[in-house]
Amino acid sequence: MAQNTQTPELLDLTIDNITPNTIRINNQGENERLKYLLDRLVTHLHDFARETRLSTDEWMTALLFLTKAGQICSDVRQEFILLSDILGLSLLIDSINHPKPPNATEGSLLGPFHTHDAPTLPNGARMASDPEGEPMLAICTVKDTEGNPVAGVKIDIWETDSSGHYDVQHSDRGEPSERCILVSDEQGRFWFKGIKPVSYPIPHDGPVGKLLVLLGRHCYRPAHVHFMFEKPGWDHFITALYLRGDPYEKSDAVFGVKKSLVIDLDKVDKKTAEEYDVPEGTWLLRKDFVIITEKESLALRDELSTKALKDQGLKMKLVDHLPVPDLD
Amino acid sequence: MAQNTQTPELLDLTIDNITPNTIRINNQGENERLKYLLDRLVTHLHDFARETRLSTDEWMTALLFLTKAGQICSDVRQEFILLSDILGLSLLIDSINHPKPPNATEGSLLGPFHTHDAPTLPNGARMASDPEGEPMLAICTVKDTEGNPVAGVKIDIWETDSSGHYDVQHSDRGEPSERCILVSDEQGRFWFKGIKPVSYPIPHDGPVGKLLVLLGRHCYRPAHVHFMFEKPGWDHFITALYLRGDPYEKSDAVFGVKKSLVIDLDKVDKKTAEEYDVPEGTWLLRKDFVIITEKESLALRDELSTKALKDQGLKMKLVDHLPVPDLD
Repeated sequence: MAQNTQTPELLDLTIDNITPNTIRINNQGENERLKYLLDRLVTHLHDFARETRLSTDEWMTALLFLTKAGQICSDVRQEFILLSDILGLSLLIDSINHPKPPNATEGSLLGPFHTHDAPTLPNGARMASDPEGEPMLAICTVKDTEGNPVAGVKIDIWETDSSGHYDVQHSDRGEPSERCILVSDEQGRFWFKGIKPVSYPIPHDGPVGKLLVLLGRHCYRPAHVHFMFEKPGWDHFITALYLRGDPYEKSDAVFGVKKSLVIDLDKVDKKTAEEYDVPEGTWLLRKDFVIITEKESLALRDELSTKALKDQGLKMKLVDHLPVPDLD
Repeated sequence: MAQNTQTPELLDLTIDNITPNTIRINNQGENERLKYLLDRLVTHLHDFARETRLSTDEWMTALLFLTKAGQICSDVRQEFILLSDILGLSLLIDSINHPKPPNATEGSLLGPFHTHDAPTLPNGARMASDPEGEPMLAICTVKDTEGNPVAGVKIDIWETDSSGHYDVQHSDRGEPSERCILVSDEQGRFWFKGIKPVSYPIPHDGPVGKLLVLLGRHCYRPAHVHFMFEKPGWDHFITALYLRGDPYEKSDAVFGVKKSLVIDLDKVDKKTAEEYDVPEGTWLLRKDFVIITEKESLALRDELSTKALKDQGLKMKLVDHLPVPDLD
């Protein structure tokens, strides 16, 4: 019952005292991290309302926006990831959680279209079934920062079809298509037959699309292929490769493009065509990915977190790599 | 096409430059208020992520929380209002939008259980159908700050039944019950037969209820009756009256209680019993409400907004009573 004696009297709350009182009533549990998250959430939420003098109508509009966003979500649609994407939050979360040393491949955001049912295919397999797509051979490697190949990495790869839709966006989706999981070989190599990616609009028939219109923003992403790398002991690494010259290369609606991830496609030459069993002149994507270990990733994340929090003037300690107030 | 030339290059976005770039891309429209709201929203959202170094797992947990909140919403349930209520935001929004001079009745939050189908009843009518409720006669007046009665005010009144549920919380809800609309008479009077309100838990079988458990908070509201006053030219006024001595009087889960809104019930005496046609000894609620005009309300809101924004060091002007940056 110690809890009750700590509970503040919640009476006569005003614009000026509601924030500390909400934080105090939220502060009765044992989970230090959750308490810190709620402290910051409530502070920012209330400061937002105070700085904007948010009107009752605007507040209700926002609540109904969130309601509609929730209600359009389904097994194959995640409107809140889209919202996070277009507000730059997803880029920020990825940057905070998966910092990279200068010699590793940079990350990019997950987006809402990864699924967990991609088939594991042998290297060299065709992962795209769209007959309208322009065939593209991808020849890649995955190595560590010393240049050593990393074998046995599961690489989850997904892209749209030639109409700019992921398979899950088709109501009559059958088998997964334009997605697969490969495993890197002893030389760290993986390769597959896909299609040349195309630029496409993010789903814009819901509340997020309407918000983009209100903001005078377009809803397009430049052409890209997603890659996710998984191997025990290694950083869970999500990135994408973007095609140079795409009309949306410098205005990605979800802020995912990094210069180091922009690539030029080549054409398959005669020798490669024979080796990989594709027609000469097929589009060719080549990329050498450099991944880091989980230990390297966490150490770098901790180092950058500690520095950033100190720079923000926050007295924090890291517990399980996540900051909580340092009250000692 | 001036728009396009202003568009920043969105490339190589990082923890440090994502915020100004997101704000710039959101800043292409014409609506100054919307641009300011988005500027503040993005700034606070990103600062929240930077101060907490929000993990990918926490981010995904939050997105799924919002998804579930949206999906539990229905015609008769609004989980986002509940969320706003338990985070103190609703209290804040009401305080900002409906400030009261010292001689007017204070406001309280709307809550998620107002409906638009309450029947308009004559004064003196019975608005509660629950036979288990303890009968309560309410005799009220509505006046201006000079003490003059205000006639013709529509007063929307709603309370729970004796089990602590609003009618809409019963899946077999038929006619509206424990709710009505009255109209004040020439003397500013309105009166009705309801039931003694009881304390009750807010709906806690959804994500908001689970959050309260995680935070070590209870989900109860002290016994109260809601009142909403509407008349053209007068402030749209929402309040509630709370019973003194309720176990949750000082720990309302949604921060609604103000000392000036806490009342003692009396018992109906012989004379009143005859006058109002109720048994002697029936519970009696008496309250004189004081409302202000829309003009008074907006003037006070503007005055307080201007002062608060200045105190926050923000250079703003009010357009339609809402702040936008003053760039002149």
